[in-house]
Amino acid sequence: MALTTSEQAAITSGNDMWHTEAVESAGLPSVIVTDGPHGVRVQAEGDDLLAGVPATCFPPAVASASTWDPELLHRMGEALGDECRAQDIAVLLGPGVNLKRSPLGGRNFEYFSEDPLLSGYLATEWVRGLQSRGVGASLKHFAVNSQETDRMRISADVDERTLREMYLRAFHKVVTRAQPWTVMCAYNKINGVYASEHHWLLTEVLRGEWGFEGLVVSDWGAVVDRVAAIAAGLDLTMPGPDPVGDRALVTAVEAGRLDPAALRRSAELVQKLVEKAGDRPAGTYDADAHHALAREIAGRAIVLLKNDGGLLPLNDQQSVAVLGEFARTPRYQGGGSSQITPTRLDDALTAIQASGAPVRFAPGYTVEGDSDEGLLAEAVAVARESDVAIVFAGSVHETEGADRESIDLPATQLALIERVAAANPRTIVVLSNGAVLATKPWDEQVPALVEGWLLGQAGGSALADVLFGRVNPSGRLAETIPVKLADHPSYLDFPGEHGHVRYGEGLHVGYRGFDARDAEVAYPFGFGLSYTTFGYGAARASASPSGVEVRVAVTNTGDWDGREVVQVYVSLPGSRVRRAPRELKAFASVPITSGDTTEVTLTVEREDLAYWDIRLGRWIVEDGEYVIEVGSSSRDIRATVTVHVAGDPARVPLTADSSVDEWLADPRGAEVLKTALGATDRPLAPEMLMMLGSLPLSRMAVFPGMPITVGDLDKLVEAAN
Amino acid sequence: MALTTSEQAAITSGNDMWHTEAVESAGLPSVIVTDGPHGVRVQAEGDDLLAGVPATCFPPAVASASTWDPELLHRMGEALGDECRAQDIAVLLGPGVNLKRSPLGGRNFEYFSEDPLLSGYLATEWVRGLQSRGVGASLKHFAVNSQETDRMRISADVDERTLREMYLRAFHKVVTRAQPWTVMCAYNKINGVYASEHHWLLTEVLRGEWGFEGLVVSDWGAVVDRVAAIAAGLDLTMPGPDPVGDRALVTAVEAGRLDPAALRRSAELVQKLVEKAGDRPAGTYDADAHHALAREIAGRAIVLLKNDGGLLPLNDQQSVAVLGEFARTPRYQGGGSSQITPTRLDDALTAIQASGAPVRFAPGYTVEGDSDEGLLAEAVAVARESDVAIVFAGSVHETEGADRESIDLPATQLALIERVAAANPRTIVVLSNGAVLATKPWDEQVPALVEGWLLGQAGGSALADVLFGRVNPSGRLAETIPVKLADHPSYLDFPGEHGHVRYGEGLHVGYRGFDARDAEVAYPFGFGLSYTTFGYGAARASASPSGVEVRVAVTNTGDWDGREVVQVYVSLPGSRVRRAPRELKAFASVPITSGDTTEVTLTVEREDLAYWDIRLGRWIVEDGEYVIEVGSSSRDIRATVTVHVAGDPARVPLTADSSVDEWLADPRGAEVLKTALGATDRPLAPEMLMMLGSLPLSRMAVFPGMPITVGDLDKLVEAAN
Repeated sequence: MALTTSEQAAITSGNDMWHTEAVESAGLPSVIVTDGPHGVRVQAEGDDLLAGVPATCFPPAVASASTWDPELLHRMGEALGDECRAQDIAVLLGPGVNLKRSPLGGRNFEYFSEDPLLSGYLATEWVRGLQSRGVGASLKHFAVNSQETDRMRISADVDERTLREMYLRAFHKVVTRAQPWTVMCAYNKINGVYASEHHWLLTEVLRGEWGFEGLVVSDWGAVVDRVAAIAAGLDLTMPGPDPVGDRALVTAVEAGRLDPAALRRSAELVQKLVEKAGDRPAGTYDADAHHALAREIAGRAIVLLKNDGGLLPLNDQQSVAVLGEFARTPRYQGGGSSQITPTRLDDALTAIQASGAPVRFAPGYTVEGDSDEGLLAEAVAVARESDVAIVFAGSVHETEGADRESIDLPATQLALIERVAAANPRTIVVLSNGAVLATKPWDEQVPALVEGWLLGQAGGSALADVLFGRVNPSGRLAETIPVKLADHPSYLDFPGEHGHVRYGEGLHVGYRGFDARDAEVAYPFGFGLSYTTFGYGAARASASPSGVEVRVAVTNTGDWDGREVVQVYVSLPGSRVRRAPRELKAFASVPITSGDTTEVTLTVEREDLAYWDIRLGRWIVEDGEYVIEVGSSSRDIRATVTVHVAGDPARVPLTADSSVDEWLADPRGAEVLKTALGATDRPLAPEMLMMLGSLPLSRMAVFPGMPITVGDLDKLVEAAN
Repeated sequence: MALTTSEQAAITSGNDMWHTEAVESAGLPSVIVTDGPHGVRVQAEGDDLLAGVPATCFPPAVASASTWDPELLHRMGEALGDECRAQDIAVLLGPGVNLKRSPLGGRNFEYFSEDPLLSGYLATEWVRGLQSRGVGASLKHFAVNSQETDRMRISADVDERTLREMYLRAFHKVVTRAQPWTVMCAYNKINGVYASEHHWLLTEVLRGEWGFEGLVVSDWGAVVDRVAAIAAGLDLTMPGPDPVGDRALVTAVEAGRLDPAALRRSAELVQKLVEKAGDRPAGTYDADAHHALAREIAGRAIVLLKNDGGLLPLNDQQSVAVLGEFARTPRYQGGGSSQITPTRLDDALTAIQASGAPVRFAPGYTVEGDSDEGLLAEAVAVARESDVAIVFAGSVHETEGADRESIDLPATQLALIERVAAANPRTIVVLSNGAVLATKPWDEQVPALVEGWLLGQAGGSALADVLFGRVNPSGRLAETIPVKLADHPSYLDFPGEHGHVRYGEGLHVGYRGFDARDAEVAYPFGFGLSYTTFGYGAARASASPSGVEVRVAVTNTGDWDGREVVQVYVSLPGSRVRRAPRELKAFASVPITSGDTTEVTLTVEREDLAYWDIRLGRWIVEDGEYVIEVGSSSRDIRATVTVHVAGDPARVPLTADSSVDEWLADPRGAEVLKTALGATDRPLAPEMLMMLGSLPLSRMAVFPGMPITVGDLDKLVEAAN
């Protein structure tokens, strides 16, 4: 049944914080959308805004991304879908695929990576998994929402090539591969225009170029002007109700200021979503199985950064000093809308005790991060009297709504690490943090370092699994750990000021920037150790119309079964555009038993070789010899091969505004121009041609005595094209 | 006599390459404008575009800036004025005050510094000196013309604060202090608009804000559209004639598309310029005296970078190996429009021979930079058999019209340095170069390094003066020498591509960027050694309405008379805007005889403490405790003092779009908001306020259950302001 204009206006905003508006006359019920992305946060009636009924707290994206395994993300998505069905949720608000532009980003723990391809492939499987259960995803925050500071107003000032190749790329992957039911528009502005009013973004790119078929929902409170938002392509404003905005829409349609088709289209998309959500039966889920899955993913997410002398894994014969309050009171998720009330919560202390080794515990500092000489001295004494000391350290608070101001551990924890390491040379540090922490120079004092991120409700058990070797670590850094914050590509321009933030490093986000400057890092992108070792054979690469297939044999050369994350980086020396020295273009997490060799095949999609040409306004794959680097991290390349890829046609027509150099670089243009110059009795000296190379032909013609005059231009241009 | 519209159109373009158009009926003659800036380049009839009649080739700006002495620039300006008078030149095309954004900039040798204040003060005195002779300057290239690549079309994409504080600052200084007769608009675009059509730049800022009274002339060939240019505030298009453009102007006026007052104003400015130039008698100059001045400035420009063990100065008892073709065939200026045919030319080889020491010479490489084993072996043999070896090295070619691709010395010269240093530990390297060259790691192999820039026609003698101690070096780096090019703040974004270059490092040009990242450099901004040493007393600072006066006692603690360049850097910890860790705000080159102490007084102008506030659209001096660092270089701070400076009023009115944090930070706003919140029965929990801090009040009001509703906004805003 067709809706009236008023009804259309009404259903394009919510009817409360979490429900869509019902239209009884049309038989349209209300459905629930609710926060994710690493758990189902359902706010119970009368609860605080940030409270929720118990649900499985899976590892946040900072951790799940470190698995580099889309298949795990798929399973997490399925499990989340089952929990949504149990709670009658239509749409779960996730995944978040914004790039981690700066280590200071307050919401980094909810995002996957500093690399758009890794983010895109992981999020694609999360969405496929979730939606396979009849629950919609909400791909967010579209777009360029890489900071919390002034997030409701800040304009992310970013050039189009960077936008396309870096900040939109993960969104593009997920939309084209998984068709999320919804995309959530971001709070911020992009180049001065609110995402919620960005017609180019929401309509031209998202729907026109990418073929998005779903609904665009606002981030909560992101809409400033309902009429402008609907006109731009935003469909559903949350929260609601918004009677003032509903009336404004009706008035705008009546006054001819808003195309009625735009409002009708948005209303139909809301209807379609509600009907889709109504198509599925309620469900249940097995909380124990989900806890086990959370533990599996967490175990796969842990990144072993350092393990001098094979200190890890531990055995149950060693006496262990477990130090640091976070061992007992785990940091397992960040603050804000993604905060889950877990079904249960594993702590590392209990899990280590359960491993059988003799354990003594000292908190070292309080859960707020404070300490005193008594707490420190107690921890040091315990460390001294144990075979091995494990210091649990980490960030005290990370939350949506605020960026961090530093990447340093609290001074109290640094003191604890330093003193424990001095008391016991067999000291292991385990970090819990939602975004990278500086590890220099203190990590040089400890033989082993475990990056434990925020691991969700089963993280404590997962850490014990890795520490005692029940799980052989295979997590890899999805973000570079810099030596110091000031080295970071984003450092000079984060978080901006007075309403603007310049994306000054352009394409050179994360490892791309460090590599471009050949700058030292603490631990590179893609890095992570294992209890075993892997050897690589030669790489082979073959191009096809759909991309490049890369094959390499990987051998587990150590004594442990394990997983290797094989990474393919691509570059194009001599490219006509500036490119990072290497960019991740394919990856695979491969289980290999000790002594075995596996032939790994990875596919680089042709679309991922393209750059965005701002002159032509389209993606261009350059013709050339692409360098394919296969490695165990971005700075541990094990095999290199080159492959020729045939390029896209990309001739830019010559005009009078084209420079002398451009005319000479174009075969036909060069012929035309040289003929014209040769026909005059005033040829140009070579040094003059060098000076004049960048001169547009039209401007060359205004100089007295030049061999070409203004009158010649039109026929030269015609002849050249 | 009033000119007709046609005559107005005619005189707003030239009548050939170098003359303005005469109007006989109005008794208006034609005058000559010609290239500078470090010499008077008059193209003789029938000569090539880049040839000129002999004139004194003074040190190019790369060298004169290294004197850090405005008084020397003033004298150079006077001398240039005299030479212009002798040639009947009305306007000399200089000085160039574009920032050296990248070491690769092809025209860096024509520009002063990576710091706008140093550039501005030096250029001001150059203009004052020139114009004191009745010859007009042409301050160029206005603006943001910091590269040669695609210079006729490239858009310098730069945010307004960076534009104001960095790229326009030197222009502002010169215009407001010296009123150059003309300003030359640049070729490039700024944020997508050609400088020649940039109304904001040429009219609002230059004339409206700065009070420029002179004429805006185009760079040669910079005008694309005469009508758009006149409308924007460009007055004189060069070269000419341009009958097509003249007719277009007349047609545009007649059709009402161009304000006749705009054309009339431009024509009047051309008339005024011509009349002004006619007011002075012809002149002569003393070529010998000008050569001596060129030698004096060159001697002051040389920067002693390294002098381990006091190897320099040399005495005339030592046998000297002079190695490298550049000793015999000096590199003393760059290529392009500034290229001078010198009145004579000193080479270092002859000057060193004249110093009395026994000298043997070997060229080592050819003037084109080539070498072979024979040339190298000969040089090494000579070095081995001499007490001291001096290797002359440098860049082979630097020119307008092309940026460099590398900052490395040619491989042949690196080989020469390496082999000579191995053969003779007493090796001195003398560099000739228009922009910085990488000195790492090879400078670690030589005990002495002399930065000789491009020193003009007397450079050879000036180098001998320094090498033999007749001049005690006092030159200082006006640009940072990086360890490697990839470390440079501009590296990721230079020279751009496809018509755009992102000024991604923003304010952090040159040393500001290195300091902000706490990054290693080879030789810092402001650095330079002397044959003597200087000690600093405590610094004192006192604020006044016009700025801050800084006093410091400096003692020559060594055995040589010498000059110290005292540098004042300022910072404001806790500033409300991002600032570089230190910025040059005052400097003085002070002669001090051995053993003496001089009380040096430096003035920091209040205007140089201000930042550009993009919200308020004006300059703001913040209230606060400014840190005044007095040093011998930017990384050799000798005394620090803080001073309180009273700020400008800068309250930003609160609106419904102001965030909760902004309301709470404003005394009146906080009172109003807290009263409003306290009046409800739904107070907010502290963690919610943290989440909500960045929420604009208007958006907070759309959430269900918030203590503030949309209806409250207007009265809250009214109460707060």
